[in-house]
Amino acid sequence: MTIDRIEPSARMSQAVAYGDTVYLAGQVGAPGESVANQTRAILAEIEDLLGRAGSNKSRILMATIWLADMADFAEMNGVWDAWVDRDNPPARATGEARLAAPEYRVEIIIVAARGA
Amino acid sequence: MTIDRIEPSARMSQAVAYGDTVYLAGQVGAPGESVANQTRAILAEIEDLLGRAGSNKSRILMATIWLADMADFAEMNGVWDAWVDRDNPPARATGEARLAAPEYRVEIIIVAARGA
Amino acid sequence: MTIDRIEPSARMSQAVAYGDTVYLAGQVGAPGESVANQTRAILAEIEDLLGRAGSNKSRILMATIWLADMADFAEMNGVWDAWVDRDNPPARATGEARLAAPEYRVEIIIVAARGA
Repeated sequence: MTIDRIEPSARMSQAVAYGDTVYLAGQVGAPGESVANQTRAILAEIEDLLGRAGSNKSRILMATIWLADMADFAEMNGVWDAWVDRDNPPARATGEARLAAPEYRVEIIIVAARGA
Repeated sequence: MTIDRIEPSARMSQAVAYGDTVYLAGQVGAPGESVANQTRAILAEIEDLLGRAGSNKSRILMATIWLADMADFAEMNGVWDAWVDRDNPPARATGEARLAAPEYRVEIIIVAARGA
Repeated sequence: MTIDRIEPSARMSQAVAYGDTVYLAGQVGAPGESVANQTRAILAEIEDLLGRAGSNKSRILMATIWLADMADFAEMNGVWDAWVDRDNPPARATGEARLAAPEYRVEIIIVAARGA
């Protein structure tokens, strides 16, 4: 099976597809934005990457969510709940982890199935 | 390949199976219980979900364990070591992460193979 | 599909391969070593385990990196950037998580494709 990489850089790819499964790099929003806005930006980026990998949000298998502060759980969930495909929700886990810079409040890591 | 979801809610599914692989949501125990009891409840829930997905604990591929306090590593391991299939142990990683509520002390995320 | 386990112990395996995908246990370096040296040891161990699983570093799909202190991000990246296959970079996510012992500064979790 071939491996397809999307937005490869010298350090990492933004997505790597292998056979029928696609792994996305941890996505973050814009530093300084609110938790809700960062979450919106992340989910938009996820949709874009999934589209380029031949997948879409109805085919997400697993979402791992890191919050810099678990106090932001409800604010992140408000955006997530409005976005997720309610007929096709992924498995999910949320934990608290400081991120690459303190201004990043949310990071989401996706594994998805290719296909429409 | 079809995607099968177990216990889907408006936010997430408790397990998502795709082809021969199953991804479980992060499992937690009952708030306020001891680390050992939370771990026991988590592992029982994992067995139940794996069974419903057509898998079982001998077919776990990867376990990611989050502890709210790494000081609980030995107590969690005591329960894990008694439970794990010693002939078929998964890959595993354990890190410290505060969880969705402070009373949650352990969360375990599983990827497993379907089949018996 | 068969499941192949590498270095199984009573608690976990160092790698588990299922079909064309291999999951590595979280790898750590030697306690007390610098972040750079721990990262070098981890990446060498990853190459060794991938080789034994019939894979190699050009076929890494996803790398999840935990740093005990995000202040070590640049030092870890210096070693990573020199090591990663620039023609075949994986997806990647990095978060801060205390590890099993305070002397562990870095842990890396790999999912890779088998094949050459």
